Amino acid sequence: MRMAMDKARQYGLGAVTVRNSTHFGIAGYYPLMAAREGMMGLTVTNARPAIAPTFSTEPMLGTNPIAFAAPSDMGHPFCFDGATSITQRGKIEVLARAEKPAPEGWVIDAEGNPLTDPDKILEDMGKATAALLPLGGTGELLAGYKGYDLATMVEILSAALCGGMFMKDLLGFAEDGSRRPYMLGHFFLAIDIEHFIPLEVSRRITGQIMRALQEARKAPGEARIYIAGEKEYEKEKQIRECGVPVNPNLRRELQIVRDELSISGYEVYF
Amino acid sequence: MRMAMDKARQYGLGAVTVRNSTHFGIAGYYPLMAAREGMMGLTVTNARPAIAPTFSTEPMLGTNPIAFAAPSDMGHPFCFDGATSITQRGKIEVLARAEKPAPEGWVIDAEGNPLTDPDKILEDMGKATAALLPLGGTGELLAGYKGYDLATMVEILSAALCGGMFMKDLLGFAEDGSRRPYMLGHFFLAIDIEHFIPLEVSRRITGQIMRALQEARKAPGEARIYIAGEKEYEKEKQIRECGVPVNPNLRRELQIVRDELSISGYEVYF
Repeated sequence: MRMAMDKARQYGLGAVTVRNSTHFGIAGYYPLMAAREGMMGLTVTNARPAIAPTFSTEPMLGTNPIAFAAPSDMGHPFCFDGATSITQRGKIEVLARAEKPAPEGWVIDAEGNPLTDPDKILEDMGKATAALLPLGGTGELLAGYKGYDLATMVEILSAALCGGMFMKDLLGFAEDGSRRPYMLGHFFLAIDIEHFIPLEVSRRITGQIMRALQEARKAPGEARIYIAGEKEYEKEKQIRECGVPVNPNLRRELQIVRDELSISGYEVYF
Repeated sequence: MRMAMDKARQYGLGAVTVRNSTHFGIAGYYPLMAAREGMMGLTVTNARPAIAPTFSTEPMLGTNPIAFAAPSDMGHPFCFDGATSITQRGKIEVLARAEKPAPEGWVIDAEGNPLTDPDKILEDMGKATAALLPLGGTGELLAGYKGYDLATMVEILSAALCGGMFMKDLLGFAEDGSRRPYMLGHFFLAIDIEHFIPLEVSRRITGQIMRALQEARKAPGEARIYIAGEKEYEKEKQIRECGVPVNPNLRRELQIVRDELSISGYEVYF
């Protein structure tokens, strides 16, 4: 991202692709680097197969997130960071730890039926007999093909500009069955706003868009309309003040790891 | 798009923004120009307010399509062109002409209840008492906020790089209530593949991604998995051979226009 931003500073735009990588952490981290320096940033990455295409039940595409940020004149930039599936593995893991079912409509089995038991979902995803549904859900009625198409767009941007691996080749196994790195691909784009219009004008327009959305008519029973990046901004402030919340099951896991490895100094935390 | 492609040919990337525009036709037309010349293309545009943000019932954001194309080694490029809402006005108009209801989950009224009568939808959208739902639907359960966020990303790219109009200012009315042009904004990006890897390698990777998706395990009862751009490619071939299908109500409308304006020479068509 830094290289893309350096190029953008000089030419207005910069793009960098990466191949043979691994999980790069929080996708939104990279466009936020751009937003902090007066640029818009866009980052996508492929991932191990998880999403079933429309009319399929086979996990073929990664959760393939799109992350985009733009500077605003508010306390935080606009920042969207979302998988092109409805949900992703991390949220299923959180439900498994909390012993709660997954909502119907997130995951299907090999016959296309809904799966809601989070432990079974995690087990079956490993065997490719469960798949995440693309944003928009199953079939064409609610435009699930758009989530599927966006996931494919991300797969293409992540592999077809860097000559990298994609889809089934990201499973972490070589042809002879031995383990190997995941070999993911990423795409980073930076747009230096000052090459288009003055940064302050752009900040104000993005801020006006954000404020207008916050002030839109509320649906009955709803108190507040959020902007992408707003919840995370507030959450970060809260966590920096109060610490990271840990549920009882995760706490127990951390205690086991701590005790088994005789790691000292964490007794006050969990 | 041509200007963005000329810049991309020279520098690897080119981006152009447009303000004070009107409906620019088929969004996918522009990235397809890039794909035909060995580039990837991305185009977005804002539009008159239609989508309600998550937790709102007010039409605030346009259908704000994302269009992306990449060259492949198949008969047609990968080409996604989709609104960030579940559906768009044109599909409601088609249903109105065909006298068919809209599926529940596409449109809500001012109280957040589903609307399915296409004539009422078209009338109420004009009065801002009906709104399209973002891709992912209402609330957060099936990640409707992602469609909402993607629509906002498009609004930002369409206005905050060109200093253009956005949201309510796109309704086609000046402050004194008089009609004025819509003043839409667009964003065009071209990526010249040869600046990254040889074009033939990229075409092959995109083609491999497309073929792997087509060959995925079918859901029960499904015969075929489509790739973005595939249905349109086949439809275009069919229409060039057999002509444009016209339903009886549209045909009647065309006949009325033809007869009222005494336009001759179309008797053989409708």
